[in-house]
Amino acid sequence: MLNKDSRIPLYAQLMDILINDIENKMEANQKIPSERETCEIYNVSRTTVRQAMAELEREGYIYIKHGKGTFVSPQKFDQNLQGLYSFTEEMKKLGKVPASKVLKFEIVTTNKDITKKMKLITEELAYKFTRLRLADGEPIMIETTYVPYNIFPGITKENLETTSLYDIFQESFNQNVEYAEEIFSPVLTNAGEAKYINVEVGSPSLKINRYAFNKQDIIIEYTVCIARGDKFKYHLKLLK
Amino acid sequence: MLNKDSRIPLYAQLMDILINDIENKMEANQKIPSERETCEIYNVSRTTVRQAMAELEREGYIYIKHGKGTFVSPQKFDQNLQGLYSFTEEMKKLGKVPASKVLKFEIVTTNKDITKKMKLITEELAYKFTRLRLADGEPIMIETTYVPYNIFPGITKENLETTSLYDIFQESFNQNVEYAEEIFSPVLTNAGEAKYINVEVGSPSLKINRYAFNKQDIIIEYTVCIARGDKFKYHLKLLK
Repeated sequence: MLNKDSRIPLYAQLMDILINDIENKMEANQKIPSERETCEIYNVSRTTVRQAMAELEREGYIYIKHGKGTFVSPQKFDQNLQGLYSFTEEMKKLGKVPASKVLKFEIVTTNKDITKKMKLITEELAYKFTRLRLADGEPIMIETTYVPYNIFPGITKENLETTSLYDIFQESFNQNVEYAEEIFSPVLTNAGEAKYINVEVGSPSLKINRYAFNKQDIIIEYTVCIARGDKFKYHLKLLK
Repeated sequence: MLNKDSRIPLYAQLMDILINDIENKMEANQKIPSERETCEIYNVSRTTVRQAMAELEREGYIYIKHGKGTFVSPQKFDQNLQGLYSFTEEMKKLGKVPASKVLKFEIVTTNKDITKKMKLITEELAYKFTRLRLADGEPIMIETTYVPYNIFPGITKENLETTSLYDIFQESFNQNVEYAEEIFSPVLTNAGEAKYINVEVGSPSLKINRYAFNKQDIIIEYTVCIARGDKFKYHLKLLK
């Protein structure tokens, strides 16, 4: 229980008690007792409870849904950004069954914007496909990808349903991604994305723009990925 | 103008025209013509305009505010994650004047949660301070930081207002950050943060948990940073 004589402030003690409950007695997305209830249970002031809740939110243990209450944050996939990663391989490492559903598949002529982004000299044919990524059947990301047609002729929608893109590159074309550049920005999930990845419109997502290069420094994949904020976190080590 | 005989689909041609307008004739956060107006200006169907707008949003040129319209996305600071970075140094590189406002400064005894996060053996005294970070006077991040007191005795609120934390570490204590671990997750800005960083509640922000280590692998800084999504993007290169 709370010790009013401790050097540790009451709100910080309350935080520890609540963290213990969250980690050992509660489930992801379960509603936690309200401020008022928490005041009564622990016999502390509203101010103390508010400060504890604010810290728990900042430290990522809980999230607030306005007008609905406060809930236990779900565990997230922890993606290491130390080197190249592929969705398929990462999910397998975590013991999850990865799957991809191809929502749209076209062959297009690139416009100026995509021509420039893919560093092409002029407009070219490219595959453009949108894939929903699932882990154990649950949708967690939606990705729209461009791949140059000339380097990879003959890819079909069916190939992408059953084989990872990088396996297709490797097995059918003897090409590998040697390095990639990624750009991260936080966004609100829009209506078109939300219905597929099964979150509410306006939920936080991470947008990742990925440019993948082959040995000749040619971009063989340009992808815009929307990854569910309640499912993913990304970590990396920064050296001097 | 649009060429109905081109191999490039109409929506993709329209996209290029709108990108040209956005980049050369418009300002950040300026409202762009509505779907209906765009249909009339370019004599194209609503479907074409909708698809162009969806692509422009995905590619990051525009953002939608529900019930308010569609706006030109602002330019963002592009933070390289290739190695250690400090707010102060990064802003100087960009020709911006960095400033920090210390909103709160305390010396606390760490609770279990913070003790564990800082990998301390037992509860210890730590500085806990919240800083608002500004670039050319504009608030762009809010950070709450813990620093072990025993290693850095005598830091004051005034030190932090005028000197970067890493300069204090170096100049007053001969300590350097040798490496850091960072965890990224997209979040909605909460009310407490929003009023300081001058965005609407529920705007997208990037939450960064930073653990900075000295040469002896001791954590000398633990920070939770909320960076405005409209101001920052982060990029890195991933190698095989």
